Amino acid sequence: MAQNRKITLTEKEIPHQWYNIVADMPNKPLPPLHPGTGQPIGPEALAPLFPMALIQQEVTTDKWVDIPEEVRDVYTMWRPTPLYRARNLEKALDTPARIYYKYEGVSPSGSHKPNTAVPQAWYNKQEGVRRITTETGAGQWGSALSFACNLFGIDCEVYMVKISYQQKPYRKVMMQTWGAHVYASPTDLTEAGRKVLAQDPDSPGSLGIAISEAVERAAVDPDTKYALGSVLNHVLLHQTIIGQEALVQMEKAGDFPDVVIAPFGGGSNFAGIAFPFLRYKLEGKREVRCIAAEPASCPKLTRGVFRYDFGDTVGMTPLLPMYTLGHQFVPAPIHAGGLRYHGAGVIVSQLLKDGLIEASAHHQLEVFEAGVRFARAEGIIPAPEACHGIAAAIREANRCKEEGVSRTILFNLCGHGNFDMQAYDDYFAGKLVEHHLTDEDIAAALAKLDTPEIA
Amino acid sequence: MAQNRKITLTEKEIPHQWYNIVADMPNKPLPPLHPGTGQPIGPEALAPLFPMALIQQEVTTDKWVDIPEEVRDVYTMWRPTPLYRARNLEKALDTPARIYYKYEGVSPSGSHKPNTAVPQAWYNKQEGVRRITTETGAGQWGSALSFACNLFGIDCEVYMVKISYQQKPYRKVMMQTWGAHVYASPTDLTEAGRKVLAQDPDSPGSLGIAISEAVERAAVDPDTKYALGSVLNHVLLHQTIIGQEALVQMEKAGDFPDVVIAPFGGGSNFAGIAFPFLRYKLEGKREVRCIAAEPASCPKLTRGVFRYDFGDTVGMTPLLPMYTLGHQFVPAPIHAGGLRYHGAGVIVSQLLKDGLIEASAHHQLEVFEAGVRFARAEGIIPAPEACHGIAAAIREANRCKEEGVSRTILFNLCGHGNFDMQAYDDYFAGKLVEHHLTDEDIAAALAKLDTPEIA
Repeated sequence: MAQNRKITLTEKEIPHQWYNIVADMPNKPLPPLHPGTGQPIGPEALAPLFPMALIQQEVTTDKWVDIPEEVRDVYTMWRPTPLYRARNLEKALDTPARIYYKYEGVSPSGSHKPNTAVPQAWYNKQEGVRRITTETGAGQWGSALSFACNLFGIDCEVYMVKISYQQKPYRKVMMQTWGAHVYASPTDLTEAGRKVLAQDPDSPGSLGIAISEAVERAAVDPDTKYALGSVLNHVLLHQTIIGQEALVQMEKAGDFPDVVIAPFGGGSNFAGIAFPFLRYKLEGKREVRCIAAEPASCPKLTRGVFRYDFGDTVGMTPLLPMYTLGHQFVPAPIHAGGLRYHGAGVIVSQLLKDGLIEASAHHQLEVFEAGVRFARAEGIIPAPEACHGIAAAIREANRCKEEGVSRTILFNLCGHGNFDMQAYDDYFAGKLVEHHLTDEDIAAALAKLDTPEIA
Repeated sequence: MAQNRKITLTEKEIPHQWYNIVADMPNKPLPPLHPGTGQPIGPEALAPLFPMALIQQEVTTDKWVDIPEEVRDVYTMWRPTPLYRARNLEKALDTPARIYYKYEGVSPSGSHKPNTAVPQAWYNKQEGVRRITTETGAGQWGSALSFACNLFGIDCEVYMVKISYQQKPYRKVMMQTWGAHVYASPTDLTEAGRKVLAQDPDSPGSLGIAISEAVERAAVDPDTKYALGSVLNHVLLHQTIIGQEALVQMEKAGDFPDVVIAPFGGGSNFAGIAFPFLRYKLEGKREVRCIAAEPASCPKLTRGVFRYDFGDTVGMTPLLPMYTLGHQFVPAPIHAGGLRYHGAGVIVSQLLKDGLIEASAHHQLEVFEAGVRFARAEGIIPAPEACHGIAAAIREANRCKEEGVSRTILFNLCGHGNFDMQAYDDYFAGKLVEHHLTDEDIAAALAKLDTPEIA
């Protein structure tokens, strides 16, 4: 019986470097602009919020960045993660395609997020930071950062959107188990929170308010910094550990992907698995298609515009050159909370603009149908975010079948669904609805954009 | 920086055989007795409930049992599981002990249970069985069997205790995701269920009632068999895959355990990791202490008696020679639901009687304190059942410190706590209580035992 299902690496095979795609981009990312002056801003503007080492990573053009040995040591707590040949799924789809997936759900918090939470916490520790603040919606990022801060003895303060805090208490308990302080935002601990509460004492909160609270805490206290779980260049950089491992594993499998796929929220999941393969294309060595799979209800890559916009919903951050639906766009309340972000990270946006990567959009029912199909074939029950990558992979595998050709498809299975069973329950009960955005909806959202166009 | 934290194996290193400790036991297990006649019964009595291949495994004295290649192939979906050196925990405890743990939480259902669910489903499939029934409390076993049956195209019917079905819906959804039919027991599908409902339409159900329903369904339908997740010899046999892998991993680490520890419910978790090491003791090659860690509120090994008793709570099964608190003993409602069983499997009971293994009992607060300590050191948040093994390991590590000696401790981390966050929430909120059993409580429970003494 052929096995060759799971390709494992030893801890000695964990890569020693992250890959920085900026070095190989034909058009480098445009600079961020000051929201008041509209002038390009330098890295020093970020100093109140981030430690210098991370700011340097944000702007570096070095192709390779060494992973500190202490970070590699922590990575051994769950890395290298397994790469699977999805033999059962291939059979279920009756496709000639060879499908592989990298499984990031084996991390302590159950997703790829600790890949960047750990180095972020470590670099902060090196610069004497004693507290890190962040915001979280459903809690994937907040739990990853809680886990990482605990390991280095850093206080972690998580501003969790109040409605999630109340309705989804289990990730909150997870963060507390790792010693974090979790607050239902809006709180009375910050100016921003108090302002909201004065107007509406029963405010359910929002990610925008939570960001304001977390940023304010960091800005007013020199011992406190802020951390972000996606979008920024240094976050994407750290996630390339996924693809760097997958490269070695694909080589052991004697294969190389024709198509690399990942779910798309802010870009770090996608960048993590895709960039190390995209390098071969940028170096002119191999052709490879990279597809970012986004929700049809939040289609910034497939239906948004490339222009300067704010990174947050309230308009406090520098202006970033990104594919966006406008920072005031409010996506439908789909279960894949991690993909409900209005814009795309700067690097990924430039690559899409330059035709070096692709994007696909998926409706919620297609996404859950793909997730259940995957669970029944491969065993693992995926997070709703991860189901987007599966849906895109199934589309490609079906294309192979229609065309009668075999291609190699690799996707990132970024997390398990153990904390998302309510979503599956709703799906089985027929309670999930499609959220159809008309062209008028999109036009109306974009009409609100008053930020600078890109020349 | 020293790494050597995680010892992985490739899928080719998955063992080819299960280890059957019966072959090496100085005193073989006593036979089961017919509850009516009190006479020993043969394996044929089990034929209505189990396929012949499993019945043969139940009584075999062969030392090694080949793992079918198809089962090994399915094992590659999550096996080999990693073995970790708990370097952070050692440091946190400031102990000279070397602590290792085998992590079974990487399976699709998150525990060690699929190790036996998969071969059970496969052997049933070989004999043309079309449906398998079982009972489940919190859902660990039911979800493992659902996963396994789905892979082989067998219908899975799970009778889930109604109160758990209502209060803990997420494992139910997990089972449904893998295509199982999950019923809130008591149901009107069985004579046993209808009888209960006639007396009490609002019955919250019990594991005893659920067993009766599952067994009845199997007994009346020739295409349907029944499956059990612990206690029986063939279940223990399948779980030895854990220890067989750990043997190879400990050898790669250049170490061998002085102490092997696992949580104890019915015995399969403990047998799984301990028996392959205990073999060295039975063969006279090495000394090794094996400790079964049970809840202080269900102390059959440390405070029960060795005598014939029923395997179920209602008294339908054959009489088994076991350490027991009496089949009518109702344990306190601790969060470690998987350990709330009145008796111990036959093989483990005989080994304890013969002084070849040990047992320790742990109160709930000690258990959760150990779990949180572990989560903060090693990252993984353990299931409440798994915390019992951790608590016992910490006791042994502390003894090493007191005595100033270094010993090697290995324990089985049998599952993650992703579906148990309410228990951690209760712990942090100070809502968990100790359940103290007095000598009078134990005596009163044992006084109800009217089954045959062991000569």
